Amino acid sequence: MEKFNVKAYGTQAIDADLELLTIPRREATEKDVEIDILYCGVCHSDLHTARNDWGGTVYPAIPGHEIVGKITKVGSGVTKFKVGDLAAVGCLVDSCRECDHCKHDLEQYCIPGFTGTYNSPDKHLGLRTYGGYSEKVVVDEHFVLKVPENLDLAATAPLLCAGITTWSPLRHWKVNQNSKVAVVGLGGLGHMAIKLAKGLGAHVTLFSRSPKKEQDAFDLGADEVIISTDATQMATVKGKFDLIIDTVPYVHDVNHYIPTLNINGTIVLVGYLGNLEPMLNTVPMIMGRKSVAGSVIGGIAETQELLDFCGKHNITSDIEIIKMQDINEAYERMLKSDVRYRFVIDMASLKNE
Amino acid sequence: MEKFNVKAYGTQAIDADLELLTIPRREATEKDVEIDILYCGVCHSDLHTARNDWGGTVYPAIPGHEIVGKITKVGSGVTKFKVGDLAAVGCLVDSCRECDHCKHDLEQYCIPGFTGTYNSPDKHLGLRTYGGYSEKVVVDEHFVLKVPENLDLAATAPLLCAGITTWSPLRHWKVNQNSKVAVVGLGGLGHMAIKLAKGLGAHVTLFSRSPKKEQDAFDLGADEVIISTDATQMATVKGKFDLIIDTVPYVHDVNHYIPTLNINGTIVLVGYLGNLEPMLNTVPMIMGRKSVAGSVIGGIAETQELLDFCGKHNITSDIEIIKMQDINEAYERMLKSDVRYRFVIDMASLKNE
Ligand SMILES: [Zn+2]
Ligand SMILES: [Zn+2]
Ligand SMILES: [Zn+2]
Ligand SMILES: [Zn+2]
Repeated sequence: MEKFNVKAYGTQAIDADLELLTIPRREATEKDVEIDILYCGVCHSDLHTARNDWGGTVYPAIPGHEIVGKITKVGSGVTKFKVGDLAAVGCLVDSCRECDHCKHDLEQYCIPGFTGTYNSPDKHLGLRTYGGYSEKVVVDEHFVLKVPENLDLAATAPLLCAGITTWSPLRHWKVNQNSKVAVVGLGGLGHMAIKLAKGLGAHVTLFSRSPKKEQDAFDLGADEVIISTDATQMATVKGKFDLIIDTVPYVHDVNHYIPTLNINGTIVLVGYLGNLEPMLNTVPMIMGRKSVAGSVIGGIAETQELLDFCGKHNITSDIEIIKMQDINEAYERMLKSDVRYRFVIDMASLKNE
Repeated sequence: MEKFNVKAYGTQAIDADLELLTIPRREATEKDVEIDILYCGVCHSDLHTARNDWGGTVYPAIPGHEIVGKITKVGSGVTKFKVGDLAAVGCLVDSCRECDHCKHDLEQYCIPGFTGTYNSPDKHLGLRTYGGYSEKVVVDEHFVLKVPENLDLAATAPLLCAGITTWSPLRHWKVNQNSKVAVVGLGGLGHMAIKLAKGLGAHVTLFSRSPKKEQDAFDLGADEVIISTDATQMATVKGKFDLIIDTVPYVHDVNHYIPTLNINGTIVLVGYLGNLEPMLNTVPMIMGRKSVAGSVIGGIAETQELLDFCGKHNITSDIEIIKMQDINEAYERMLKSDVRYRFVIDMASLKNE
């Protein structure tokens, strides 16, 4: 298979910083588009993969799955795009395309497993897929999204992971103008959850552990902030919420939020992979027909729906633009939650290196 | 308030056997019906309440909330029933009637709390409500169900708790001919779950820990039995079920069943009140948009719907009829799961005592 080299940033070992590397990309085949990457968002998963926090990382690892750019080449069979179009790539670059879930636009739940944008087996070049911390990426057009022209391009990048991860549960659990939604955690995912739930017309509450985030939440559109450590405030929202989007990425007590769900309500976990500790107590779930659920990113059609919705409602992420060379420092700041609310890499900095 | 005495069986202390007692019943007021109890099912909750396993039992405790009988008196404002009608009473005898849930036929989730058929504060006579292990009961007609004439009356009694507890989640999660349903546990609840899911046209699988129950499950209508301790068998149902009804009343590993849910699938716990131990792991929930939920009994309209459905499909419980005087022995057998599948008390035995 024909290929070419591009510059990229990645890690060569579990304890190594990210550094300038050269990686191969395939020449666009029939259904492929080649994208010149202009901006790439920085997701917690990038850091976890770079440092092998979840196991399974194969080095070199090139993170990045919040990709926006411009199309520089299209294969002969491409119908959705032409050279010069804006384009975006999220967390998926391939799936089986044949299973029941793929056929229903649920590629994120592909039964044999989807191909992640980075650190997945690469069906074309062997080795692993390499992500968006690079000059260019080549992707089958089915997995490439159209980008509304009216949005700030850098601030659009985080929609591809932080955005769709919160959008998908909002849509699956049918949030609308009559819904009462709460968000736990105000980071990259949480701030998008507030904006998107508001965009859908819902009443939105942020659960926060400290009053410091109150004004930020209101600025993002929240109707209400509840300090979750304050029992009096928590009592005021007993039985209130139809859906709680819990974006907290570390272990925490989910039991704490169950009483604030209305009957038939669901708390959906989108940030924390692991055991529910302390143990989940079934009594309030049974006595109120409440659910604890999980959700991961979204399908391609749903991601396009999100981008179109954001174009229409002028919703983007609040971001801090960094240079590719600042990525290691950005990771350290991310670990301290010192970012409002997403780092986005200006990829011109890589091209000029 | 005018009242009269009836014979009943109940406990006077946490460690006491059930024995013959005399209890008061109110004279039927305007909206009340007075029911001569013919049969009363024996539920695990009866035993837990008699022995104060959940705390909160006030003695004397008169259990019994699977009540069927014949109406012997009606208040002047009663419109649904007349003297001589068959009637049934389940787990609820009152609720606030005014909250948002009551107004939507969800009395089981009444916000100030429903009045249980036994061991709840009695709004009329003070003290506690007394259940169906008695000659008669007096209940507001709103909480009294009509009984199809074609069903075996004794075998109808368990529909009022075991039946509705499994029917409500089957309906809430919209089980139909296209659904694949699994049932965990083959007791009073489990055997009803199989019959009712089959009645709704679903494909039904029983998870069992031992092959001994296989033939019983098929006899009840199950399409498939999976030995849950057999990894090979478990692998054959990976990603299969839309809904799992988990009737197991003691602590057990719910994680074990999550992989057998299809995406968007739910495992609903109806039997176990307590902490999920071992801890619930979120990874398969997130990676498959799966839910863990709870559900308790059902509303009055839904219970009537169940009884009508059972009349139409000729569905009742498999029962073993006992005398009131055998209740202590029956509790011991129930603790050993030595019952297929529900004890029902022939209340003539109490009247003749
Ligand atoms: Zn991500
Ligand atoms: Zn697939
Ligand atoms: Zn019961
Ligand atoms: Zn109520």
